[in-house]
Amino acid sequence: MTRFALTIEYDGRPFMGWQRQAHGPSVQAAIERALKQITGEEIVVHAAGRTDAGVHALGMRAHCDVARPITPFRLMEAINARVRPDPVAILDCAVVPNDWHARFSCTARHYEYRIEVRRAPLTLDRGLAWRVPTPLDADAMTAGASRLIGRHDFTTFRSAHCQADSPLRTLDRLDVERDGDVIAVFASARSFLHHQVRSMVGCLALVGQGKWSPDDMTAALEARDRAALGLNAPPDGLYFLRADYPSSG
Amino acid sequence: MTRFALTIEYDGRPFMGWQRQAHGPSVQAAIERALKQITGEEIVVHAAGRTDAGVHALGMRAHCDVARPITPFRLMEAINARVRPDPVAILDCAVVPNDWHARFSCTARHYEYRIEVRRAPLTLDRGLAWRVPTPLDADAMTAGASRLIGRHDFTTFRSAHCQADSPLRTLDRLDVERDGDVIAVFASARSFLHHQVRSMVGCLALVGQGKWSPDDMTAALEARDRAALGLNAPPDGLYFLRADYPSSG
Repeated sequence: MTRFALTIEYDGRPFMGWQRQAHGPSVQAAIERALKQITGEEIVVHAAGRTDAGVHALGMRAHCDVARPITPFRLMEAINARVRPDPVAILDCAVVPNDWHARFSCTARHYEYRIEVRRAPLTLDRGLAWRVPTPLDADAMTAGASRLIGRHDFTTFRSAHCQADSPLRTLDRLDVERDGDVIAVFASARSFLHHQVRSMVGCLALVGQGKWSPDDMTAALEARDRAALGLNAPPDGLYFLRADYPSSG
Repeated sequence: MTRFALTIEYDGRPFMGWQRQAHGPSVQAAIERALKQITGEEIVVHAAGRTDAGVHALGMRAHCDVARPITPFRLMEAINARVRPDPVAILDCAVVPNDWHARFSCTARHYEYRIEVRRAPLTLDRGLAWRVPTPLDADAMTAGASRLIGRHDFTTFRSAHCQADSPLRTLDRLDVERDGDVIAVFASARSFLHHQVRSMVGCLALVGQGKWSPDDMTAALEARDRAALGLNAPPDGLYFLRADYPSSG
């Protein structure tokens, strides 16, 4: 049995999310189906993060165990050939130790959330960014974001369906960067709660629009109550960028 | 009768091109259909460039004449509301003099062509860039591009279906810019022949791969023969960026 670590890019639009579902397409099922065709084996793929429907990935990490002898390069090429026409691509494939786990060995997860400030509907970026038709003050958003950095009870920013044992998380980075009409929010943490990035971004947009002050962000956090959430941003703008592992992995 | 200048963004993937076709969707027909619904008038939209099937625009310019009184802002909003779900957006709309013509008044057209150098299939950028699986030498491409600058007979780089009277064109800019695995080619001219940008980019890729030398580019140009063309790049990576007009337009 050889364990392979995969780096995966996907367009989340046609999928119900990363995780295999009984009634709809998923990234996991697309890759597992390709692996079955290649190896004849029933292989389960474990990912660093289980992204929601419509959420994208530029560098998701995952692992799988394969009994049949195959090189990482041939495995990568074979998956890419078989996974079509689904918009999923294996960007890298490497052999890792059998105790390397894409989810449990992961020490940090990095997301980007893309906002486009414009009145006109999106065309080329439809489904790939959140269109906000009103001006956003990126400096105010930065001030609001600073209120969330550190170790907190993020109950307010957590989906009602979140299955994590604890609402405590340590947010290491929440940076707002403006480039013309595009605002990118970068979020990093060891792990996130379900909907946490989208919920933080939704409230940051309220701060950017002047509907919330940075103090309102602190009040929402301290409320520890989902009802105190201002806005949950849509999945369209969310990208899983990359995952960190202890050594080289 | 009021003449309006439009600035238009579109995703070329679902269209047979800009121009109205008897048997398939076009950007022109999508906008004209919206105008008919808004005004009740049969309005023809004239564009600065008639892009091919699968070619995109970030800032196409066009004009149309409307009899019914309407402000530019309301016309823009109405088109954007009616053109859905087609991936077309009016980014700007302004009243212009009745002798302002999107095509004939245009003094320069600017295109970008996007290449992604990678083995893995494209996912998020599928249809939005040309994937080239082998390394490209951007410096060699720059050297090759310099051979095409200026006034030349571009017969080699012209589609057999090109309807222009003359194959003479003045190429003002053909710049190759690399950013990691993305190579962008910027082309500017008063006007281009049919397929000229794609044909120039196809040959530049051959130079980048080392299959052609910059001298081969000169030889292809001087052959003035379509059979001397090395490669026509696919429409996927081509974007009409913007058009210039004499004064403010």
